[in-house]
Amino acid sequence: MKNFLSLSLIFVMNMVFSQNIQSPSKNIAVDFKLSASGQPLYVVNYKGSPLISESTLGIKLKDIPALDGNFEILDTKASTFNESWKPVLGEQSSIVNHYNELLVSLVQKGTQIKMNIFFRVFDEGVAFRYDFPKQKDLNYFIISDEVSQFNLTDNHKVFWLPGDFDSQEYVYNETKFSEIDNSKLNLNNGIGVKSIAGQYVVQSPLMMKSPSGLYLNIFEAAVVNYPVMHLDADVKNYKLTSHLVPNAIGDKAYLQAPCVSPWRTIMISDDARYIVGSKMILNLNEPCKIDDTSFIKPMKYVGIWWEMHVGKSTWDYAGSQNAQNVLTKDLLPSGKHGATTENTKKYIDFAAKNGFDGVLVEGWNVGWEDWFGNWKEEVFDFVTPYPDFDIDAVTAYAKSKNVKMIMHHETSASVANYERHLDRAFNLMKKHNYPAVKSGYVGKIIPRGEFHDGQTMVNHFNFVARRAADYKLMLNSHESSRPTGYSRTYPNYIAAEAARGNEFNAWSTGNPPMHETILPFTRLLGGPMDYTPGIFEIKMSYYDKSKTEQVHTTLAKQLALYVTMYSPLQMAADLPENYEKYPDAFQFIKDVALDWQDSKYLEAEPGDYLTVVRKAKNSEKWFLGAITDENARQSEIKLNFLTKGKKYKAIIYEDTKDADWKNNPIAYKISTIEVTSKSKISLNLAPGGGTAISVEPIN
Amino acid sequence: MKNFLSLSLIFVMNMVFSQNIQSPSKNIAVDFKLSASGQPLYVVNYKGSPLISESTLGIKLKDIPALDGNFEILDTKASTFNESWKPVLGEQSSIVNHYNELLVSLVQKGTQIKMNIFFRVFDEGVAFRYDFPKQKDLNYFIISDEVSQFNLTDNHKVFWLPGDFDSQEYVYNETKFSEIDNSKLNLNNGIGVKSIAGQYVVQSPLMMKSPSGLYLNIFEAAVVNYPVMHLDADVKNYKLTSHLVPNAIGDKAYLQAPCVSPWRTIMISDDARYIVGSKMILNLNEPCKIDDTSFIKPMKYVGIWWEMHVGKSTWDYAGSQNAQNVLTKDLLPSGKHGATTENTKKYIDFAAKNGFDGVLVEGWNVGWEDWFGNWKEEVFDFVTPYPDFDIDAVTAYAKSKNVKMIMHHETSASVANYERHLDRAFNLMKKHNYPAVKSGYVGKIIPRGEFHDGQTMVNHFNFVARRAADYKLMLNSHESSRPTGYSRTYPNYIAAEAARGNEFNAWSTGNPPMHETILPFTRLLGGPMDYTPGIFEIKMSYYDKSKTEQVHTTLAKQLALYVTMYSPLQMAADLPENYEKYPDAFQFIKDVALDWQDSKYLEAEPGDYLTVVRKAKNSEKWFLGAITDENARQSEIKLNFLTKGKKYKAIIYEDTKDADWKNNPIAYKISTIEVTSKSKISLNLAPGGGTAISVEPIN
Repeated sequence: MKNFLSLSLIFVMNMVFSQNIQSPSKNIAVDFKLSASGQPLYVVNYKGSPLISESTLGIKLKDIPALDGNFEILDTKASTFNESWKPVLGEQSSIVNHYNELLVSLVQKGTQIKMNIFFRVFDEGVAFRYDFPKQKDLNYFIISDEVSQFNLTDNHKVFWLPGDFDSQEYVYNETKFSEIDNSKLNLNNGIGVKSIAGQYVVQSPLMMKSPSGLYLNIFEAAVVNYPVMHLDADVKNYKLTSHLVPNAIGDKAYLQAPCVSPWRTIMISDDARYIVGSKMILNLNEPCKIDDTSFIKPMKYVGIWWEMHVGKSTWDYAGSQNAQNVLTKDLLPSGKHGATTENTKKYIDFAAKNGFDGVLVEGWNVGWEDWFGNWKEEVFDFVTPYPDFDIDAVTAYAKSKNVKMIMHHETSASVANYERHLDRAFNLMKKHNYPAVKSGYVGKIIPRGEFHDGQTMVNHFNFVARRAADYKLMLNSHESSRPTGYSRTYPNYIAAEAARGNEFNAWSTGNPPMHETILPFTRLLGGPMDYTPGIFEIKMSYYDKSKTEQVHTTLAKQLALYVTMYSPLQMAADLPENYEKYPDAFQFIKDVALDWQDSKYLEAEPGDYLTVVRKAKNSEKWFLGAITDENARQSEIKLNFLTKGKKYKAIIYEDTKDADWKNNPIAYKISTIEVTSKSKISLNLAPGGGTAISVEPIN
Repeated sequence: MKNFLSLSLIFVMNMVFSQNIQSPSKNIAVDFKLSASGQPLYVVNYKGSPLISESTLGIKLKDIPALDGNFEILDTKASTFNESWKPVLGEQSSIVNHYNELLVSLVQKGTQIKMNIFFRVFDEGVAFRYDFPKQKDLNYFIISDEVSQFNLTDNHKVFWLPGDFDSQEYVYNETKFSEIDNSKLNLNNGIGVKSIAGQYVVQSPLMMKSPSGLYLNIFEAAVVNYPVMHLDADVKNYKLTSHLVPNAIGDKAYLQAPCVSPWRTIMISDDARYIVGSKMILNLNEPCKIDDTSFIKPMKYVGIWWEMHVGKSTWDYAGSQNAQNVLTKDLLPSGKHGATTENTKKYIDFAAKNGFDGVLVEGWNVGWEDWFGNWKEEVFDFVTPYPDFDIDAVTAYAKSKNVKMIMHHETSASVANYERHLDRAFNLMKKHNYPAVKSGYVGKIIPRGEFHDGQTMVNHFNFVARRAADYKLMLNSHESSRPTGYSRTYPNYIAAEAARGNEFNAWSTGNPPMHETILPFTRLLGGPMDYTPGIFEIKMSYYDKSKTEQVHTTLAKQLALYVTMYSPLQMAADLPENYEKYPDAFQFIKDVALDWQDSKYLEAEPGDYLTVVRKAKNSEKWFLGAITDENARQSEIKLNFLTKGKKYKAIIYEDTKDADWKNNPIAYKISTIEVTSKSKISLNLAPGGGTAISVEPIN
């Protein structure tokens, strides 16, 4: 009996040397095989042509032989999955998860270590992951490298960021693949902590376009208990190889079988709208693990924040960096502190008056005099307000106005210190009825030697989300590793920054007009972004004549961002007094929804333009956002998504003819028209401009 | 005016090039001077002869010039301090702190950085520390090295442990200084994690004896926000240089001025009793920072612990290492679990019956199936009991018997995980009225790359003590960095292990008979040790005939350790049934006090013997402990410490004539005699033996 089994096993091993799997539409096909030396290889074809040529798969381990060769196939299994699920909050109320799966079970000759590779092929792309089943010969192990390759077939156009272990807050570079080169970057870009991993390392999600017009996106999903994957670019041979972020001593990941790697994803389409609209990354994550999600609600908020960025007030109470080991009680107030009780009440009044859900207050807690740039471990305690911030009074006032307060936890990247105080911080929030927290991680990480994108920090960000869920709190992290769909599993992780946000426009070279046309193809694939749009006073010279910084959009584009940059947590980032100067434009921010029944990407070209229309959840209201890069743009959109036979009122917020992000950004016009499903609307976007439209039924 | 000041400054600089300071007794003298190149130097003389020859002082910094030369003296200041203070718990009720101090204020030419050096000279020795005052030119800085030298004048006898960043759980080596050599050690010693820093690195406290019979001890005090100092030994030239423990990336300490280094201490005496009885280390620490110390009480305890060491039961519930990612609910009980409700109740009964304060239970919480040796981050959550440990029932039962429970927190050195759960863990303790916690740090530290003795971990241990104080809890840490007197500042840090404890005798080569005669000269200088004495069943063959391991003392010596190894937290470590077999000997453990009015070291020779007698606090009872190494020992002690004219009953617990730690360890006799202050008692200690005596007034 035993001999018979062994023979049949050998039979399987020798025969199953190549496997093919296709997408439901059959447009995408993956071929898997082992090389002569037993190395796993794969190829991806789109409509019959190779888009990923033969590429290696495998893992290198510390202290034990690598899992990148000498394999035999034990078994393969094909299956199909087609279900839909309902996100708690989302771009659509129901998401279809449809793919064909191939499971390849491998065993390594000699070591007898078993490793599986899963492939899932969706209509928008391919995903694969490594799976380490429970087994006698592999329990704890340390990953020292991953050799997942993505070998491209041409010198594509690439929208790339340098592969930095600590920051994604860069502007995108749009070059040919062969021109990727971090040594040529201008690094005077306002980023505080940079750890670029080499001359030819780039970040994912990496959006590309082939010379023949195909769109490719390489990313990852479900990065849980694993470091972020950057990509080594072989610029001569158009090859990409996984580059895992190390920890303080150079190890990549500490795992225990049974376990899995994140999914490595390759999205492919000849229509960019299918990539920007794809829910593949979310689909590759685990379903929601929170039983009672009733506390997870969309929030539109204002806050004491932009006024610090423009220099009107400060986070600190006593003047920045003047508090060398001085006790808070001995600090002398500078008179410029933003987070005072009085100022907070003004924001609460403004939020209440305009129907906003929440008010964020940054700089409420002690520590800001000496918080940045010195790798200091004990900066904030997250529970002690400044003398001029009366948290009890603020809580009572907010309650009286039916406004929710949003807590702020700047960690200064001293994560060890934050974790030590997390229960205390969350208890304070519960005591004062704050439903959500914005966290920040500016600086070099403590534990020292760790990076923002390493396994330690990935675990930290996910841990904070889980612990927040314990307390029924929502989390919005800034300067975290970029999301890869964990908000499906913990939807209280409602948003993150994790890319270059609007704030850079206030005090740095800023974000060029094309920036917001790329983010939906990259950063936003992994989850909502707290971009903090809605800046009306575009130019910083408004505050200080000597300043030349500015937001690189028109005002109308700032409105459109509320639709193009999906997030159930959206800030109206500008100062209340600026909104009061432009009440007609502000009306769109007041009206726009945050949670959606459906979303339709009407026009999309990464780096150039994006037009999306969304239907508010459980509502007949629609909102459209259209944005362009530095080039003006005209187009015509059909409103055939509207219910047939129904009449609607459309309010159009658009650039004037002479509007221009640089020379005339606050030039907008607003018109109201009646439309039906048969209507068409002409979009006229200024350079760096945009259009926002709200559509609601007429009775 | 300005010119005048500058001139006077130069005058001071040039004139004050050498300074002398003496101990109150004038036996010890320190000379300080700057070398021609402006390097700080010092010399220590004892009764006119040099014991530390010219040695350098200084600090090296990362990224900025070293503070080890090019100095000028700005100012010097001499002062005298003579006060006494009352420890909350201690070897004596009042401690005299008497020293002469020299403050040398230095400024570095060029950088203009100011650094002060403080010298304090006590009758038992010298201490110095670096002080970095608040100044414009030095705010945050990173220490990359320290060049404090201790240049010896001869080839002393040394009691040394290898300089290991992760463990002090070694047996002492007694050699000449020139014979220090870690490469010759037998490392099959039962220590789980070893990180020996080099061939000629040793630990402090380093106890030495000169060929002429002088005793020297090099140690440190008040290690706060700084790594542990080990010592590089130049075995040819009899020189020692500070060797700071690095962090994950090789840095030694992150500091911000104003700040100080720990004190570097050199104890000197021609009488070993003055070193073992010195309170210099405590005196060099900050006074108590806890306002209400009423919760800090001595505790005598038993516990579910030794039965695991001898193999009678297990920490785990389901069998060690068989739980590869298995949920607790799916574990199958092995039937060998020690920490059951039923077993705990037995220990509570035993504690209540014999007047013990507390019961420790190890293995009560989930995680032990897979806790050790794999650098696993999430092992324990510190709040979830095993299914067979009913914490509510245990709490209620303990309360009904007036016994306190001692919590156990094994962290498996996953400190990041422990800190994340610390508030929850302490809240559980408060809820269940546990007044004290024993913590453990077995394994490689997480954050990975850190060492037990690095700044990060020193800060952690001190942090846990402070947080425990928040909750009015007492702390007893095992496998922590060794104490340097922080228990003066946080007396709730009631004890620590931090050396090779009694447990090694159960399952390793154990602790040779001289071990306990050295610890009071080394480990115990920094604070109480939870050595867990009181083992009556000396030989492990009692439990398993195949075993050859044993405790390397006689039973009588185990009793004497309750007096020689000072700790206000003392375990009766053996099994209740073993104590019930020897009720007459057990009486001493029941009787012995934990907190003392006074202590007198009657006889002392490191590595050979120690005799100490202590008077219980607020009592007329005295307890004497005498121990010897592998050699039998006779001596006669005078009871002239007793109150004159008063009669006392002395109960003497001693080795029989044929007793021997190896061949006949459980051979003891007990006699009761009447004594007065004029009495003498002959001590007759077997090889590896000891004598314990309790003395109480007769009416």
